[in-house]
Amino acid sequence: MKKGIVIWLTGLPCSGKTTLSKEIEKYFQQKNLPIQRLDGDVVRETISKDLGFSKKDRDINIERLSYVAQMLSDNGVNVVSAFVSPYQKMRDFTRSLCENFVEVYVKCDIEECKKRDVKGMYAKAAKGQIKDFTGVDDPYENPKNPEIVVSTEKENIKESVEKIINYLEKNNG
Amino acid sequence: MKKGIVIWLTGLPCSGKTTLSKEIEKYFQQKNLPIQRLDGDVVRETISKDLGFSKKDRDINIERLSYVAQMLSDNGVNVVSAFVSPYQKMRDFTRSLCENFVEVYVKCDIEECKKRDVKGMYAKAAKGQIKDFTGVDDPYENPKNPEIVVSTEKENIKESVEKIINYLEKNNG
Repeated sequence: MKKGIVIWLTGLPCSGKTTLSKEIEKYFQQKNLPIQRLDGDVVRETISKDLGFSKKDRDINIERLSYVAQMLSDNGVNVVSAFVSPYQKMRDFTRSLCENFVEVYVKCDIEECKKRDVKGMYAKAAKGQIKDFTGVDDPYENPKNPEIVVSTEKENIKESVEKIINYLEKNNG
Repeated sequence: MKKGIVIWLTGLPCSGKTTLSKEIEKYFQQKNLPIQRLDGDVVRETISKDLGFSKKDRDINIERLSYVAQMLSDNGVNVVSAFVSPYQKMRDFTRSLCENFVEVYVKCDIEECKKRDVKGMYAKAAKGQIKDFTGVDDPYENPKNPEIVVSTEKENIKESVEKIINYLEKNNG
């Protein structure tokens, strides 16, 4: 059976991961191909609702969802995920489990992310009302060798999506 | 897209769930159909390795794996699971998430289960060396309305497997 692709979007909060993941989901749906979207906010209400945002909990979250992505892709289901996934070590762990792993660095300057932050999370983190917030009091490790880099500051959504789709059609089509 | 079937084997430890689940997995593989086997022992080393066997932890385990089964079956992947899953409430929760849910009660007298217990778990539980062990100091709630009952005491493996396959071919084929 042909294995699914795991498109792993990583980047700061409010960098645009969820928006892009929904567009990629649509692309697969239009082609009538199986696709599962995994979203940080959603999994924290279902599979990972016991977890917080400490380094340990973040690692467990990514580990857990990596096994889920592996099972889906092993069965031919494509996966697109939108997790901050700030640590290189855990992204490498996911890569080690998933055969067709495509790491997408959703790059955006933190000042721009703060401007976009409709829920006011960055402001709350700055005031200490939210702990362990990536980019404020928890680090984000830039991807070392991502398959794709999209710059949501410089590109519009359509351009970023096209960049990802073009890569998929060239390499995994 | 045609949704997958979720074949949920439930029963006492050593009742024969894992053995049956492997046979059902083979059936799907031979038909070249997508199948994911979920096994209690395996998930407790991966997705649920943080959990113990208290009622709370058991419920979280089943809840978590129910979401996984839902994602797989929503994407057309068949699922066969081998969890003790002792509580009716949680089995009903899984049913509520999965459209094609087939509850299989793997029925076996506890004295027979104890005889089969190569790892000596029942003996350890009787001595208090393992806590919260289903059938010893934790209850098993018999399924109220399972789609299938197999009696692994009275039937051999082949007969139990055939009973399950016949049901699937009649109802979900």
